[in-house]
Formats: sequence, C-alpha cells, structure tokens
Amino acid sequence: MSAAADALSDAAAPPVRSETLRLAGPRALVLESGQALEALTIAYNTYGTLDAAKSNAILVCHALTGDQHVASTNPLTGKPGWWDLMVGPGRPFDTNRFFVICANVVGGCMGTTGPTDIDPATGKPYGLSFPVITIRDMVRAQALLLDRLGICELLCVAGGSMGGMQVLEWMASYPERVVSAIPIAAAAKHSAQNIAFHEVGRQAVMADPDWRGGDYLSAGVFPSKGLAVARMAAHITYLSEAALQRKFGRSLQDRQTISYAFDADFQVESYLRHQGRSFVERFDANSYLYITRAMDYFDLAADHGGQLASAFARLKARVCVASFTSDWLFPTVESKRIVHALNAVAANVSFVEFDTDKGHDAFLLDVPEMHAIFRGFVDAAAAHRGLKAGG
Amino acid sequence: MSAAADALSDAAAPPVRSETLRLAGPRALVLESGQALEALTIAYNTYGTLDAAKSNAILVCHALTGDQHVASTNPLTGKPGWWDLMVGPGRPFDTNRFFVICANVVGGCMGTTGPTDIDPATGKPYGLSFPVITIRDMVRAQALLLDRLGICELLCVAGGSMGGMQVLEWMASYPERVVSAIPIAAAAKHSAQNIAFHEVGRQAVMADPDWRGGDYLSAGVFPSKGLAVARMAAHITYLSEAALQRKFGRSLQDRQTISYAFDADFQVESYLRHQGRSFVERFDANSYLYITRAMDYFDLAADHGGQLASAFARLKARVCVASFTSDWLFPTVESKRIVHALNAVAANVSFVEFDTDKGHDAFLLDVPEMHAIFRGFVDAAAAHRGLKAGG
Repeated sequence: MSAAADALSDAAAPPVRSETLRLAGPRALVLESGQALEALTIAYNTYGTLDAAKSNAILVCHALTGDQHVASTNPLTGKPGWWDLMVGPGRPFDTNRFFVICANVVGGCMGTTGPTDIDPATGKPYGLSFPVITIRDMVRAQALLLDRLGICELLCVAGGSMGGMQVLEWMASYPERVVSAIPIAAAAKHSAQNIAFHEVGRQAVMADPDWRGGDYLSAGVFPSKGLAVARMAAHITYLSEAALQRKFGRSLQDRQTISYAFDADFQVESYLRHQGRSFVERFDANSYLYITRAMDYFDLAADHGGQLASAFARLKARVCVASFTSDWLFPTVESKRIVHALNAVAANVSFVEFDTDKGHDAFLLDVPEMHAIFRGFVDAAAAHRGLKAGG
Repeated sequence: MSAAADALSDAAAPPVRSETLRLAGPRALVLESGQALEALTIAYNTYGTLDAAKSNAILVCHALTGDQHVASTNPLTGKPGWWDLMVGPGRPFDTNRFFVICANVVGGCMGTTGPTDIDPATGKPYGLSFPVITIRDMVRAQALLLDRLGICELLCVAGGSMGGMQVLEWMASYPERVVSAIPIAAAAKHSAQNIAFHEVGRQAVMADPDWRGGDYLSAGVFPSKGLAVARMAAHITYLSEAALQRKFGRSLQDRQTISYAFDADFQVESYLRHQGRSFVERFDANSYLYITRAMDYFDLAADHGGQLASAFARLKARVCVASFTSDWLFPTVESKRIVHALNAVAANVSFVEFDTDKGHDAFLLDVPEMHAIFRGFVDAAAAHRGLKAGG
C-alpha cells in the first residue's frame, strides 16, 4: 500500500514518508558491547514538513513491540498507527506544525537492521550471531539518522515504556541536541521483576523447538507457540488488574456455563490467546529476545558512576516526566526517581501522574488529560524555541 | 525413606504416618461436572494422635503445587515439609496436642487420584480424559476421608492460597463440620488477572510438543520445558516486586559485568531458571493444568445465588481471615470481601493483615506475627471446644 493510499484511507492520518537510510562500512554502528555492525539500515517514517531552520523536529521513540508506523496505517497489520492519538494534523504532536520522525529500533524487525537480516560476513541471516544491543545503541542509531537529515536539535523527543528509556538516554547522551523531552511510563533502570518477566518470555521462545537455537529462518520454521506464550505473559503486565476486571471479569466467552474443559471458557483467556496469535504474525522471535535484553540491560545510573543525577548533569532541556497510577510494570515511583535526579541538577522538570485504571498501556490509549498536557508542553517548548504558534 | 528415618533426620519434625485411602465403585467420587471417578485413592499424612472424642483434628489444605507432606521430609525432594513452621511439636498447630491431617488434592500427582493414574476404564493413563475437577470436588474427597477416619468435626481447617479456597469451600459446604477456619491469602473467586496468569501457564505446557495432547506418559516423554516456563511465570506472582528487589535487584550472577548475551546474567534470571528446573522434577504437567483450572473455576458467590454471604449462612465456626500487605495475587481486598460477607451473616470472624514485603508466598515463610496469631486462634478454638490446654 502506498503512502498516498494510506492518507486517503484515513482522513485523520497525516501524509507519511516511509524511508530507509543505509550506512555501510566496517564501523557503520559501533555498539556498546564493543562489537560493530558493518552495515546499518534504518527504516523510518516522517510526518509533516521540516522547517528551513530545521527547528521543528520531534523524534518519537517506540516501545518494545512498536515500530516506525506511529501515525499511519501499519502495512503489515493494516491497523492505524500505534500513536495516532498523539501524532497527526491537529494532534498534540501536530504534523501541520511539526516534523515528526519515528525510526524502527536497531534489533527490530520492521526494516531496521536486526537479527532477521543477512549478515554480510556470512551471507546468512544473523539469528543469534547478531550482536546484543542496548538502549544506547538504539539512540546512537537515531542520532546517526538525524545527522543525515541535518537535524542538529530535536524540539522534542518523546516515548513511552522502552520509548521512554530511549528518551532518557537521549537526555543523557545528547543533552545538547534536546530542547524538550517527554519520558512516559518509563524507568531509569529495569527492575528485578521486569527482568523476571522478560526472562520468562525469552525462555518461552527458546523452549519452542522451532526456535532452532535462533536459526529458524534458515530452517524455514518459526517458533510461533513460544513467542505467543511470551506475548501472553507480557500482555498481562501491560494492563492493570482493575482494567482486566473491568473489561473481562469472570465473563464467559461464547457460552452460558463453564465447559469443564481446557477451552477458553473465560473472555480473558480468549483475549490473551488472540493477543498471542496476532503478535506472532507481525513480530520476529529473535528481535523479541534482543529488544527485551536491551531493556533488561538499561541502567542509566550505573552508566554514570552510580548517580542518576550525573546522567543529566549537562541537560538544558525542559522535561515532562509522566506516569500512570495503575501502571505496575513501570510504577510512578520509578518516574519520581527520574524527577528527583533531575531536581538534583536543577533541571527544568515537570512531573505528572495520570489517574487511570488502564495500566502501563495507558500511554497508547485515549487519556484526554494526557493529550492536553503533552500538547501544552510541546507548544510551550516551541514558543520557547521561537517557533510561530501553530494554526 | 521411611517415616521413622524422616523423624530421625529432623529433630523438630513430628512423627508422620503416610497413608492411602482407596474407595472403589462406579460413583466413588461424584464430581461437580456430573462425571464420577470409578476409583479414588487419597494419599494423606497425619501427625499427632487423634483423641478419644475425635475432637482435636486439624485439616491442612495445600496450595496449587503443595502436597500432603506438610511437616515431614518430602520423599521426592528430600526437603522439609512445606509448612513445618506451622505444624509440628510446639508449633502453632501443635502435634503434641492436635491431630493434623493433610491430603493430596484430587487431580494431584503425589498419590491421590489424578491425570497420571491409570483409567480403570481403559487401562491407560488418564491424561486429558481425566475429568475436570473443582475446589468443591477436592473438599468432597477430603470429607470422604474424614468420614472414613470417623472424624465428624474439624477443630480447625486451615490453608493458604488454593488451600484457603478449600477452607472457604469447607465453610460453605460443610458448615456443621467446622469448629474454626483459617483462610489465608485467598479469595472467594479467581480474578481475571489470576485466570490470565494461569492461562499463560497452561498455554506454555500445551505449546511443548512433548505434551503430546496430554498423552506424554504413553509416549514416554515429558513437557519439561513448557512446564518450567509455566512455573517461572507463576513464581513471579508469588513474590512481591519489593521482595524481588530486596533479594536480587539488578545483581549479576557469577560475573562482574554483563555478558552481552542470553546467559542468565542477572541473579533473578538464574533464580527463576532454577525454580523452573526443580519444579518439573517434582510435579506433573497435566496435574498443573487440572489444578489451575480448578482455581479458575472457583467462584463461591456464583455457587450460592450470586451472594457470597449466602455461602456462609449456616456457618457457626470461628473464622480468622488473613492476608499480606504485599500479596498482589490474592490482595487484601479479596480477604476483606470474605470478611464483609461473613459480617453480613453475623459470623464469628476476625481479620488480620500482616505487614510484610514477602508477597503471596509469605504464608509459607517465617512471619512470626502470623505464627503467634494462628497459635492463639487455634488455642482459643480448642478451649472453646473444651479441649485441655496443651503442654
């Protein structure tokens, strides 16, 4: 489906340009591990127009299973962009005013170099020979992309969950390039419980004999069952107990009484199975391993001498830290730790906790107060930067 | 290992009698589903001596992966009984005074009839042809056992988690047989989130090709990988986020720096993998499916016209409902619902919430306040029943 067709099929969707950047050379991307990628492709979408001063760019960072299709129809699923409530004409990240960029992360499976790609050294898919990447590596690749686009400075960098980790890494690694930042439902480190859930998911993938030690592409198979189980476990953590109760409770699926069997009697079982099935149609199993690992490794304080505040010592950006009351995966206390660290270096930080029962995934959902606050925050950053008010 | 050897190997352990009750006949156990077991074996342990009036019996109900070895060495693992802090000479359930009974639940895999047993109708292991059982079925089997032992009345019935569900079912199904009851870390129904986690575990087992549609025994294989993943996911829910943080945090396992690989870099990963590995050595995969299903189906209010209070209308017992502050699997709000229902029928109920960061599994752990309170509660019930004070 062409970008033009996308735009026609959804009146609210902004025109999208889907592009790829290809970098080659033995050190196309030097990784935190010390390894390097010899060739780097970055698949990214842009929405809106970059102004002459290149001062109106907003970088959106996607979450674990997200991709670059932030505000336009996903070509793989046919579904709307994952953050089309936030990005588009008249949306908080107004594509009539701002130039919004979203790139698939390194290690991903939607066009940016990852474990499904051919290793130039062997001519075969990387599989598990793909180097382990980190959140910092993802951000370095994004910085290379901005270099090529000639964008020195981001009016805003925003993202939720793993996207929020990338925002924090941007603030730490490229403070001079960030005018404003919105880390949402994030943490400066992955907790023991978060690592534990990720490890369950990885073990589920690796337990599937069709995973073949990561070499399933060469074998022409795919660890669908293992990846579906991983997704099901993870999905529970994205919702609050209250949201599951409100949406499903103990309601039965397509029946009046329990079956005394192992069918999906309960709606919540049917829903979870659907989540697992649909996920394996759009996501790569090895990418899931690599990206969860990157999140586990994230520990911004450890990267800066053990003091989170040190990570932000050179930061001049305005920051809006956001969390959700019912998010138990990245609870508010983690956002407050970020705020405290920013306060310790007298950063320009605001903090907002949204009252919702929607859990971690609330950042993707219709939370009008959130959209209003982010709109105001970005508009203020734009005014501070000297951009004309939008219309 | 003989019971005598057990007793010698652990000075604090009470003498144990490991027994089996065998019932035969076409309706040996009529199940809630309408099906019936043609033969029923109940494997149970007793500790202490039943008094002449048969008035000092305490029934302990075990949790999902527990068994009858409540206070003596587990013959399969060589480990101490799972509740030896609670049951034994001088313990709160003092085996010098009380006669403690614990039976493996129907559907289990430690001697009581379950899916690993031979179906008398076919001469082959039941596998998935075993009928789906419920918490009420488990309790009915226990009642049959008490009938055979000539015990009309339980001085106390106590248990945590699924054991607590059985306690509630005892209170509802056999109110005339219960003098006192201690449902711990339980709920009168399984929540949507609880069902969701169980469904993930079941899907993990069923995704393992060695599960063979439940017929792995005939094939001489075992779905170890799937069952290990199920256990890992479940185990996270048994601990609080704070306990995981306190025990493991982001500490590394046997290394100074991260490996940039998929090894168990973090202690929490290593711990979870160990939990998975050791579980599959002691538990049956189909039993796991059946017992999780029984918990999912539990909804005591639905069984009594939609009013939980109705379940307790005929109850005369003294009840001590207990929960733990950091239990997010069966949170305090669920225990309070039970208390409210008991209050609505003017039952003799006390409620205690223990302040601990140990999570759901706290009921198994060293929580001295809990042991003191349960000791006092059982002693008072014994005094009320006219038993002599212990010595």
